[in-house]
Amino acid sequence: MQGFPPPAEKLIGQPDSNYFSFPKLRWTVCHIRELLPTREVSRGLSAPTPLNRSLDSSIDAIRFTPLGSSEPMTWQQSLAANYTDGIIVLHKGRVVYERYAGCLDEQRKHAAMSMTKSLTGLLAEILVAEGALDDEAMVAKLVPELASSAFGDATVRQVMDMTTALDFSEDYADPNAHIWRYSAAANPLPKPADYEGPVGYFQYLQTVAKRGTHGEAFGYRTVNSDALGWIIARVTGKDVSELVSERLWQRLGTEQDAYYTVDALGTPFAGGGLSAGLRDMARLGQLMLNEGLHDGVRLFPAEVVRAIRAGGDKQVFAKAGYKTLPGGSYRAMWWVLHNANGAFAARGVHGQTLYVDPTAEMVIARFASHPSAKNADNDPTSLPAYQALADYLVDRAIR
Amino acid sequence: MQGFPPPAEKLIGQPDSNYFSFPKLRWTVCHIRELLPTREVSRGLSAPTPLNRSLDSSIDAIRFTPLGSSEPMTWQQSLAANYTDGIIVLHKGRVVYERYAGCLDEQRKHAAMSMTKSLTGLLAEILVAEGALDDEAMVAKLVPELASSAFGDATVRQVMDMTTALDFSEDYADPNAHIWRYSAAANPLPKPADYEGPVGYFQYLQTVAKRGTHGEAFGYRTVNSDALGWIIARVTGKDVSELVSERLWQRLGTEQDAYYTVDALGTPFAGGGLSAGLRDMARLGQLMLNEGLHDGVRLFPAEVVRAIRAGGDKQVFAKAGYKTLPGGSYRAMWWVLHNANGAFAARGVHGQTLYVDPTAEMVIARFASHPSAKNADNDPTSLPAYQALADYLVDRAIR
Repeated sequence: MQGFPPPAEKLIGQPDSNYFSFPKLRWTVCHIRELLPTREVSRGLSAPTPLNRSLDSSIDAIRFTPLGSSEPMTWQQSLAANYTDGIIVLHKGRVVYERYAGCLDEQRKHAAMSMTKSLTGLLAEILVAEGALDDEAMVAKLVPELASSAFGDATVRQVMDMTTALDFSEDYADPNAHIWRYSAAANPLPKPADYEGPVGYFQYLQTVAKRGTHGEAFGYRTVNSDALGWIIARVTGKDVSELVSERLWQRLGTEQDAYYTVDALGTPFAGGGLSAGLRDMARLGQLMLNEGLHDGVRLFPAEVVRAIRAGGDKQVFAKAGYKTLPGGSYRAMWWVLHNANGAFAARGVHGQTLYVDPTAEMVIARFASHPSAKNADNDPTSLPAYQALADYLVDRAIR
Repeated sequence: MQGFPPPAEKLIGQPDSNYFSFPKLRWTVCHIRELLPTREVSRGLSAPTPLNRSLDSSIDAIRFTPLGSSEPMTWQQSLAANYTDGIIVLHKGRVVYERYAGCLDEQRKHAAMSMTKSLTGLLAEILVAEGALDDEAMVAKLVPELASSAFGDATVRQVMDMTTALDFSEDYADPNAHIWRYSAAANPLPKPADYEGPVGYFQYLQTVAKRGTHGEAFGYRTVNSDALGWIIARVTGKDVSELVSERLWQRLGTEQDAYYTVDALGTPFAGGGLSAGLRDMARLGQLMLNEGLHDGVRLFPAEVVRAIRAGGDKQVFAKAGYKTLPGGSYRAMWWVLHNANGAFAARGVHGQTLYVDPTAEMVIARFASHPSAKNADNDPTSLPAYQALADYLVDRAIR
């Protein structure tokens, strides 16, 4: 989008321009609110807590070998290779690296995509630790509207860990996949006159059918996050955008408000609707690294992070066959690598990540707009880069 | 909007629920971004400048007589009588009064409606003072796309002061009024399949026809503000949302980001699209009172405010017949009362105001959701209240 007005070939907008297609995607990820109705995550009115800085220019030269390759690459080369829009690295709570590209700068927000799920999962894990949410309860007990859906006889924990057995295809390449009907229901724009499907997240969730037995296999399906959003809203009386504001954004010293896209009923998209500032995502990562402590103030019990870091069931995760995450698991909507450093991450499509490495005391927040919607396509140039950086920081601390 | 999900009778949304009708209006004014695409006005990342406070509880008991009435009323009574959602009063730069009601609190934003125009006018007046915009230039010279519209042979100043002669009816009670075709063009939602009209503000503006002679009479028509927005964008290369951020919101110590609604091309609605925090509007008012100084820093030349305060042509204004503003004028999209105190104001439909009284060194910012779209319906309980408060503050300062 350039010019007043932008010429037709520069125009990105509703309804037909397919704004998530590449290269439009590279603009869209910083401008979601200009295309869709949104709901604010207020940071409150107080002054932000500045991040201390100890920039290390040597990081650009760190070398690593991409997965499946024999050609080494530098950290700096990896940023362009995987379409990074912004990346910030904290070591022991200090900023050691920060770069912006594409549509992003430190004052703008970027779509977090499925990293949103990890916030939803974190809220749920906090409520469990506080005793406000029973993760062994059947979903039907908490949200009776979901009783006859696939979620009805799943436990809250199965929803949190995505081990529900759902008849729901999220294959974006298949035009008949359920995800498209879901998207149509969720779209806040007026429906076509002949539309007869469900309206909004909550109506759609009631139509999800069961296929198989809950608890047996990990199945990455966004509807779990929105079902969890409904459970959280029912238990607390507040939606995820309000809770992220009250529990996290207002207490973390964030610099920017964040926001969620909403459906036609104003329901925030708990499965993928967040846009936020990169530094604020790093602040969230540091909070995870610090097991719930921010600036000496405890925002939630340490057991919340310990439970997430411990991970979910590796065997049920293995059945899903994620090649770039061997031996991993999924817990409360966080990806747990079960590597030597105990790393865990929030991950979003097109390369978004919030990567927390407890051993290296390192947090990486990254926004990206990789042409491929598969993280398997950008993991090869990012996961080994993160490990190489962790190794470097550990070495540097020892020297 | 209440509940997860909200029941049908509580639902406010697109496309058919007429969310600007009363009483839905009372919710909508705080939730515009949840209904429409919007563009941010960033406050930047720095700490807000706190407003000093010297609250005066005696203000509630101040008495005044509403216009056209013989029954006195207290200040406090007036707030409910004119559906105030929030009101803040600064005296000599300190907060002496602050109240919230309805959907608003100090952390939320509210639709500023046509107060937006005054920001557009202020930007233009700043550009004129800086020599970047020639207010005697013909619009066609600056924006050739408008050459064959009514704006083409108007001067920038005539647009700024709304003395253009336009064939444009803004009578909301008339279903055939131009304003509805304008709204349809501006609506960012996908157009109906059979829609053949202009798309977006800029296309519509090119269709506005002339009726009469420019410069002869004041005619309050929102299209002038959007034409001015286009002129400003062409002169600066930035739209009004970016300029309000760079020139004002980032430099005023504001507490909250603000935002504009946009059309389908991402053009901010320079005639009415702003939503902002109440205290930040008061900060803007104080900047006007201080003739462009904020915290000792000059944000624009003092002559900008002096020109606005001096007002426009009273005789051309008188022709428009505003009964509650006798002897007034309109300059750079600010209403100038030409009263003994030299007061001037930004005003929006349903009772929005930013009222600056230089003699009393008083700024009042007010958000409201009065059922009537006519300010003539809430002026009777507000304009005399403002004057009574000004008198009280002047008296108090002398005592």
